Amino acid sequence: MSARLEELSSEEAIALVSPGGVGRLALCTASGPQIYPITYAFHDGSVVFRTATYTMLGTQVRDHQKVAFEVDELDHDTRTGWSVVVAGMLAAVDDPDEVTRLRAAVALEPWAAGSRQLLVRIEPYSVTGRRVVN
Amino acid sequence: MSARLEELSSEEAIALVSPGGVGRLALCTASGPQIYPITYAFHDGSVVFRTATYTMLGTQVRDHQKVAFEVDELDHDTRTGWSVVVAGMLAAVDDPDEVTRLRAAVALEPWAAGSRQLLVRIEPYSVTGRRVVN
Repeated sequence: MSARLEELSSEEAIALVSPGGVGRLALCTASGPQIYPITYAFHDGSVVFRTATYTMLGTQVRDHQKVAFEVDELDHDTRTGWSVVVAGMLAAVDDPDEVTRLRAAVALEPWAAGSRQLLVRIEPYSVTGRRVVN
Repeated sequence: MSARLEELSSEEAIALVSPGGVGRLALCTASGPQIYPITYAFHDGSVVFRTATYTMLGTQVRDHQKVAFEVDELDHDTRTGWSVVVAGMLAAVDDPDEVTRLRAAVALEPWAAGSRQLLVRIEPYSVTGRRVVN
């Protein structure tokens, strides 16, 4: 098998997550790791997403909490693709001006109907990625 | 927006992950949550995957460690799809007979070349899922 794994540069990894879309958020809780698919946007160097205070994710979000956020494009048939992980810290966006600016800048819409009141930013301390090529 | 979120039954969720493929493994380490895309198979009620002792994931795998494993099929354009999370505990498969049986039963191949020496099972304590429908 000739496939090989290549580390991406931080710039390449950021370019891959910049368009936004769907990713998976991992966080640690008292009852173990949790993982949630979320719709996100990338704005001003940060991953931004919305959730609601009453959802499972909403109740687990804490300021300064460490998270890992993964985005990928993996083709199971050809066994090629890429995966990027943003490691960072959560910060609720609660400054009204910033909320307005972010809501305008990023087209964030939850897939499912329902009020999504919490705007959260992941402030990255690393963005790493790997690509599998044939 | 008319999309709505439906909880899947445990049976429906298991049926969706049963074919195997690609999922994301989340675990908690001293330096925070980690998330890895992995190729997996579902065998005898458990998620099974391979890794190597020298990889980052391989060094972080511990017996009885709690993990969350997520599989999804999400269409960002139509904003529909499903996501299943297997919460469970890791167990290295090291009984030679079981290794032989599992290697025969599950077509587990890492995407990237390299020796993958560690066969690991996630013994689930819950399998939950949600579907977004329009």
